[in-house]
Amino acid sequence: MKPISDIIKDKPWLGWILFLGTAVVVFLLGLLASSIIERRTESVYTLQMLKPIAEWEPRNEVWGENFPREYESYLKTLNMDFASKHGGSKMIDYLEKYPELVVLWAGYAFSKDYNQGRGHAYAVEDVRNTLRTGDNVNSPMPATCWTCKSTDVPRMMNQMGTANFYKAKWKDLGAEIVNPIGCQDCHDPKTMNLRITRPALIEAFQRQGKDINSFSRQEMRSLVCAQCHVEYYFKGEGKYLTFPWDKGFSADSMEAYFDAIEFSDWTHALSKAPMLKAQHPDYELYKTGIHAIRGVSCADCHMPYKSEGGVKFTDHHIQSPLNNVANTCQVCHREETQRLIQDVYDRQDRVEELRRIAEKTIAAAHIEAKIAWDNGATQEQMKNILKLIRHAQWRWDWVAAANGLGFHAPVEALRVLGTAIQKGEQARRELAALFVKQGWKYPVELPDISTKDKAQKFIGLDMPKLIEAKKEFLNTTAKQWDEEARKRQGYLFEYKLKE
Amino acid sequence: MKPISDIIKDKPWLGWILFLGTAVVVFLLGLLASSIIERRTESVYTLQMLKPIAEWEPRNEVWGENFPREYESYLKTLNMDFASKHGGSKMIDYLEKYPELVVLWAGYAFSKDYNQGRGHAYAVEDVRNTLRTGDNVNSPMPATCWTCKSTDVPRMMNQMGTANFYKAKWKDLGAEIVNPIGCQDCHDPKTMNLRITRPALIEAFQRQGKDINSFSRQEMRSLVCAQCHVEYYFKGEGKYLTFPWDKGFSADSMEAYFDAIEFSDWTHALSKAPMLKAQHPDYELYKTGIHAIRGVSCADCHMPYKSEGGVKFTDHHIQSPLNNVANTCQVCHREETQRLIQDVYDRQDRVEELRRIAEKTIAAAHIEAKIAWDNGATQEQMKNILKLIRHAQWRWDWVAAANGLGFHAPVEALRVLGTAIQKGEQARRELAALFVKQGWKYPVELPDISTKDKAQKFIGLDMPKLIEAKKEFLNTTAKQWDEEARKRQGYLFEYKLKE
Repeated sequence: MKPISDIIKDKPWLGWILFLGTAVVVFLLGLLASSIIERRTESVYTLQMLKPIAEWEPRNEVWGENFPREYESYLKTLNMDFASKHGGSKMIDYLEKYPELVVLWAGYAFSKDYNQGRGHAYAVEDVRNTLRTGDNVNSPMPATCWTCKSTDVPRMMNQMGTANFYKAKWKDLGAEIVNPIGCQDCHDPKTMNLRITRPALIEAFQRQGKDINSFSRQEMRSLVCAQCHVEYYFKGEGKYLTFPWDKGFSADSMEAYFDAIEFSDWTHALSKAPMLKAQHPDYELYKTGIHAIRGVSCADCHMPYKSEGGVKFTDHHIQSPLNNVANTCQVCHREETQRLIQDVYDRQDRVEELRRIAEKTIAAAHIEAKIAWDNGATQEQMKNILKLIRHAQWRWDWVAAANGLGFHAPVEALRVLGTAIQKGEQARRELAALFVKQGWKYPVELPDISTKDKAQKFIGLDMPKLIEAKKEFLNTTAKQWDEEARKRQGYLFEYKLKE
Repeated sequence: MKPISDIIKDKPWLGWILFLGTAVVVFLLGLLASSIIERRTESVYTLQMLKPIAEWEPRNEVWGENFPREYESYLKTLNMDFASKHGGSKMIDYLEKYPELVVLWAGYAFSKDYNQGRGHAYAVEDVRNTLRTGDNVNSPMPATCWTCKSTDVPRMMNQMGTANFYKAKWKDLGAEIVNPIGCQDCHDPKTMNLRITRPALIEAFQRQGKDINSFSRQEMRSLVCAQCHVEYYFKGEGKYLTFPWDKGFSADSMEAYFDAIEFSDWTHALSKAPMLKAQHPDYELYKTGIHAIRGVSCADCHMPYKSEGGVKFTDHHIQSPLNNVANTCQVCHREETQRLIQDVYDRQDRVEELRRIAEKTIAAAHIEAKIAWDNGATQEQMKNILKLIRHAQWRWDWVAAANGLGFHAPVEALRVLGTAIQKGEQARRELAALFVKQGWKYPVELPDISTKDKAQKFIGLDMPKLIEAKKEFLNTTAKQWDEEARKRQGYLFEYKLKE
């Protein structure tokens, strides 16, 4: 080969091309390096907060100044697209859709009002709005009811002491609890590490000899959710929030726990059975399913990673994975979107079939039990019947109250529903024998409970009065709470969705 | 660089090394090429048969001469390892393990004898051995019962005509039906293509407007199994083997089909209910499960591909995939063997829990119904009760009779069992009301059916007599059949396992 100097000597234009070409390439490389450095800086910004966040800072807006991407995605929990995709722009009114529920909860606040849940950002608004929390005159709930609704809760628990918090009345803390579920509930403000802020979960694990600090980061990505998405009850006079996990996680184990301490949430208005209300044992049901067994966390499906401007971050728009199949299911399952959604529906439809059977059976049992009492049944005659009703409804509710329509563990959901049907039917068998033995008319004439309205009239609720009183409460007390809160923290969370 | 001749001139030893080295490498390449050619020949041998196989050739040994690997693996269906791993060297005696079954099948041959199935190579031996097929004196079964047991069936159907085959008596064809389920059942002897040899499947699809030839090879890898592993019944006087699929595949659809034609397999000896016996609706249950939805065929899990001496072939040792997780589950699921097996057990255990509830409930309903009849119940009083019992037991059996303990579709299995429990309990409720209304003693005293022996005595079976008569049959008639067959085809299939 000839030396390059010889070649350039022969063809001088080639030298210029080489020179200019090199200059252009070097310039472009410089641009690339600059872009890489910029993006790298951007991607580590999450560790360098613009403004330090105070311990127990409840305002999501303040956290959002440091973490705009997370905050913006969180604000999307205000989005009602999912509800509108699934049959309307409003939340599903479950009492309207399944009027038997009114009968199942007679004597308990859920018979007044039970809608599909909305996003976390609506938590405070919705707990104020529901008829379950009462009005200016009747306000039966303890402050324990606030526990899962707001980032103000850890702040107030720290200020008042946990036991005192639970002991207070719901309405007494209204002006303090105004910031909806958000950043502070799950994060340490200094390190942004996941952190448990609700004592009940820590205490439940402590009683099992487990230290909350021993869990891995991946486990924490479910446990922060398990602070609230679990079964719990209000223990004793102090309404101390407690998880009934001491005998195990399953519906059967928790039933044994509640039976052993003779706990009931309320006495049924029709059947007089000592009832249990399942909250939303999402975590417990999920733990029995294949996703948990494979190490998939709540966040993996409900808060998948997302990339924006070169930054990988967790999508804080907590929602059904079915709205976001590409970033959730399809990370592991290489199937068409519509196929995957159908697979979920196939499971949910079957769970719904058994759930509906159980609902109708147990509602009939309550009504028959009421008629038995009206006819003069004795405690002794009703004892076993009421126990069967209690167990049947608990097992039904353990599945029905959990989010995901059974998808978190369809096989376990169906097993539990199968036993609910068994116990509900057994109660009705014993009732049949009692009616005929006593010479009471049998079969009984079941009332028309084919709509929410009819069912609520049947159990004796004066709905217009309740609704009017709630409006009054929202126009007076709730506004006063907002006023006080605005004075304290400068502004209130505004229910606006950035488009 | 210097030319090679210059280098060799300087260092003559290097020339020798190059020369000898090249010779060695070329020799090794020759060996490799020879090996490749040999293996290639071996791998295409399956298309060049040593001996042509006659149409309807029933002897698996004859096919085996052409296909030694497939035949050798088929012989492993004689292996009882799986049974011995799971609690003994014998088949599970289901009547011993679940004595309620004796009551559920009172008046039907299954109450005499019902064991875990063995491998395909035992098919003829086991159908002769079971008490269900009777003895020299009582031999109630039609030849239809042979349909799924032997490669002699297509031969005889071709010879006699299908309808005439079904019309014959079981005992009349004993000397003709001696080769167990094997090659000819699923393969074309000329091309080795998969082929449906049993008319019932073809006819069932024809009634739905589907041509059996339109199915893909992957579908055929399940459909050859679906010739037998399905729900079927013996239609009319001619005992014509028919699949009840005209209204659909599900338990509910087949129930509607049987109700519409008022079909029953037998009248229950205790309750007098018009009963249905589910065969083994494996294919139908599997079709509702996720494996079928993902396009996995029966053969993919029960007959996985295997490699031996450079030849890839289908393992004809049809067995539980749990015996062979590496070649079945783990082809798709990258999890530890023990974890995968536990995942299967987790589903099966839950199916078993609801199955056992249904069994106990329905057995009690039969016994209560019997006592009602004994007390003088009328047809009118019992009508709806018997219908509920019929439907409850059908739905239970639809799951219980299928292989795989519900694993082929756990969610559907549990849904169907949930409805079986509902209907069984409803029957018991109506019975309770009837008993009390009529002033008959209630609750009834349920008999002790805690063992197979006690349960069989309760339903009035004389087991020692049945067992003695079966021995007599095996020592006389069965030996005579073997003698005739040996004369006809030269030898009999020997029940020996190559180790």
